[in-house]
Amino acid sequence: MSKLLGSIEEAIRATGLKDGMTVSFHHHLRSGDYVLNMVMDAIAKAGIKDITINASSIHEGHAPLVEHMRSGVVTGLETNFISTSVGKEISRGILKKPVIFRTHGGRPADLLNGRSHIDVAFIGAPTSDDMGNCTGKFGPSACGALGYAFTDAQVADKVVIITDNLVPYPLTDFSIPEIYADYVVKVDKIGDPKGIVSGTTRITKDPVALKIARLAVECIKASGLLKDGFAFQTGAGGASLAAAAYLKDVMLKEHIKGSYVMGGITGYLVDMLNAGCFESILDVQCFDLNAVESIRTNPRHQEVSDAQYASPGAKSCAVDGLSVVILGATEIDLDFNVNVHTDSNGYIMGGSGGHSDTAAGAKMAMIVTPLVRARIPIVTKKVQCISTPGSTIDVLVTQRGIAVNPARQDLLEKFKAAGLPVVTIEELYEKAMDIVGDYKPVQMGERVVADVVYRDGTVIDHIYQVED
Amino acid sequence: MSKLLGSIEEAIRATGLKDGMTVSFHHHLRSGDYVLNMVMDAIAKAGIKDITINASSIHEGHAPLVEHMRSGVVTGLETNFISTSVGKEISRGILKKPVIFRTHGGRPADLLNGRSHIDVAFIGAPTSDDMGNCTGKFGPSACGALGYAFTDAQVADKVVIITDNLVPYPLTDFSIPEIYADYVVKVDKIGDPKGIVSGTTRITKDPVALKIARLAVECIKASGLLKDGFAFQTGAGGASLAAAAYLKDVMLKEHIKGSYVMGGITGYLVDMLNAGCFESILDVQCFDLNAVESIRTNPRHQEVSDAQYASPGAKSCAVDGLSVVILGATEIDLDFNVNVHTDSNGYIMGGSGGHSDTAAGAKMAMIVTPLVRARIPIVTKKVQCISTPGSTIDVLVTQRGIAVNPARQDLLEKFKAAGLPVVTIEELYEKAMDIVGDYKPVQMGERVVADVVYRDGTVIDHIYQVED
Repeated sequence: MSKLLGSIEEAIRATGLKDGMTVSFHHHLRSGDYVLNMVMDAIAKAGIKDITINASSIHEGHAPLVEHMRSGVVTGLETNFISTSVGKEISRGILKKPVIFRTHGGRPADLLNGRSHIDVAFIGAPTSDDMGNCTGKFGPSACGALGYAFTDAQVADKVVIITDNLVPYPLTDFSIPEIYADYVVKVDKIGDPKGIVSGTTRITKDPVALKIARLAVECIKASGLLKDGFAFQTGAGGASLAAAAYLKDVMLKEHIKGSYVMGGITGYLVDMLNAGCFESILDVQCFDLNAVESIRTNPRHQEVSDAQYASPGAKSCAVDGLSVVILGATEIDLDFNVNVHTDSNGYIMGGSGGHSDTAAGAKMAMIVTPLVRARIPIVTKKVQCISTPGSTIDVLVTQRGIAVNPARQDLLEKFKAAGLPVVTIEELYEKAMDIVGDYKPVQMGERVVADVVYRDGTVIDHIYQVED
Repeated sequence: MSKLLGSIEEAIRATGLKDGMTVSFHHHLRSGDYVLNMVMDAIAKAGIKDITINASSIHEGHAPLVEHMRSGVVTGLETNFISTSVGKEISRGILKKPVIFRTHGGRPADLLNGRSHIDVAFIGAPTSDDMGNCTGKFGPSACGALGYAFTDAQVADKVVIITDNLVPYPLTDFSIPEIYADYVVKVDKIGDPKGIVSGTTRITKDPVALKIARLAVECIKASGLLKDGFAFQTGAGGASLAAAAYLKDVMLKEHIKGSYVMGGITGYLVDMLNAGCFESILDVQCFDLNAVESIRTNPRHQEVSDAQYASPGAKSCAVDGLSVVILGATEIDLDFNVNVHTDSNGYIMGGSGGHSDTAAGAKMAMIVTPLVRARIPIVTKKVQCISTPGSTIDVLVTQRGIAVNPARQDLLEKFKAAGLPVVTIEELYEKAMDIVGDYKPVQMGERVVADVVYRDGTVIDHIYQVED
């Protein structure tokens, strides 16, 4: 008795995959992922067409997907994030059907409430036994957490585990149990370790980013939220990690014992755990090798499912307990609406991920960004695309001042009392305009290429075609 | 933000529990459980009637349930096992509706496929945070695994976690995640530790039981199944543990490395793991303190859900990989059908538990039992109640010989070749009759007091009223 099949081709046949069906993938192998490409190549070779892909994220490594879209093998895409290469083609109108953008919390919610359906889930697993007990913690392609695959495993009609490290049954310390797996396929490699985890993430040396990070930490101090039990999320890029580093110093100096830290987990957050800044890490996804090592060995570094991380359909989820989240933006407008989906030319190059989930959940949601990037204003009159509604954003931190959402007079007063450089968002907009001169936002086409679905299931915006 | 309520009464109100609804309980606190009694007392006090209890097992500690049945608070019972006190009253006809007996695997299957529905699950948890992340591994009432509560948490409309050890959010290393919990209640004690775990389980000194255990191990050796990768389950009573002890000696002497061991986990099985007889323990329920300590500290001692243990509705489950299971019986008949539901007077005093699940799954399912107990024949012409169909039982081991199911000629030949004392089951029946003389089975009444639902959902037998 074994669920092991000889190849991905065989698994595709076994699942009964047909034209018009939906297949799913997770993005824990990030840009190093071979699984999505291998499966889609096999689907194309099998002559199957009109497939919708439901993937938690699409990364640069998935650029071959463009060919499958061109050929009609792939005609639909539901995802929480699309990286540049595929994003650009979507923006140019390669798909007839609009892409459905969800959030990391909205995706499991919609899968569990039936708004979205998966026929066959293909789950890349760094270690599995032949019955499908699997984990991301071990193996040559270890990626740590497998949180974004939990719900797919639970709801998909058929589940195929694809691994490059097959171990004897039963694998203990599994992330996904055999009860959900139909088939297991062993391949040579599920991904390129260099792309799966980024080695060691580095903190920026850019003085503007460092200034913003320092200001962000001053805001956190002034907010009154930085006390025992503090729960925190930050990203891995730009000023975010630098803010975490400053925050660590403050927490150690003031003997503040935080509760938990979340987000894409890096070695910096692991260091904060080990230094005693936090009691625990809740980890839905690891970003570097230190995080993978930590989740494997430290019981206080706990893997959680996508639903537990952020689903508004769950009876509760961890984003709702956050004290502070630090987030980025490609644009933020006078109503504090944030765009993280498109670039200044209107091309798709991102997506909500957990942006709007954490913004909705955290007591203080902060955007950290330079006022202007490469002569493009970040603070604008109206964002091209609302990824995260302004009603859930509390603070904008730039190198030229801090703007507080008018709905948060409490924070405004605290920041003023702390002597922080508070300005209005209109003032920041004027400053940005002064720098860039008469910046003209790009004119978008008429055709909708993507719908932005908020975490509660409502469509909050559309993304339009870019006319080259 | 917290799910904490002040009392069980408050939680009952919050869930909207009403007349005619179904509430569920797990049995990990065994005879030491206070939760079922506390909740049912509160339901009675609230004036709610006509409640169906769906509990994985009913133990001696739940004797107060009889009063709630008498008063009409409880009018239905679905369970996998009923201990003597409540069982006797069921057999006397205290409930108008027949009890629905399921198996440990059939229960999660029927909950997940919708044949059985839970309105409110009350989950006693030895440790929980205020959002309902909970575990049985820690706390003054630690019981180890919480496997039988996993499916209840997943499917119940409302879920109340009842704990006596509230810890700060977020509890890491949880068994059941917060996504399923509606409310949390802190009480003084969820159970009596002396009743929850039995301290140290002892191996029998009865020479007849020891002889049967030795014969059982001889059968396992002769079967050809005892080799690297061997997967094993045994119970905690009578000859079963003695067989495990003999088996350990054989495995160590012959350097056999088994795969996994399951069942109600005791210190004896933990010793076998630690001695290297097995690679891992899959644990749906702990029976003693050594098992609780092991599941808390040894990553190769893995908690599994009831569905992963035994559900025929899951895409696979662990019982299907068993090489050998050793089981008991209160009766076994000439067709190898086994009764574990009723005693010689026809009173309910047990239930399938995992009996028929493991018998169906294992390559060799063995019944170990003395031929006669207290002048009652165990081998009979026809069992009072079919708990486990004879088609899934391969071998009967008694002190007077070994009978092999005629369907297993392969085993018969191997046993004969090994010089084992093989007889037919008819011969064992005759021997039993010789000992007990003209034993007359009890005459049952006409009214059905319980339906025995096999793991596939079909009713395979009825249990009739006992007429005092």
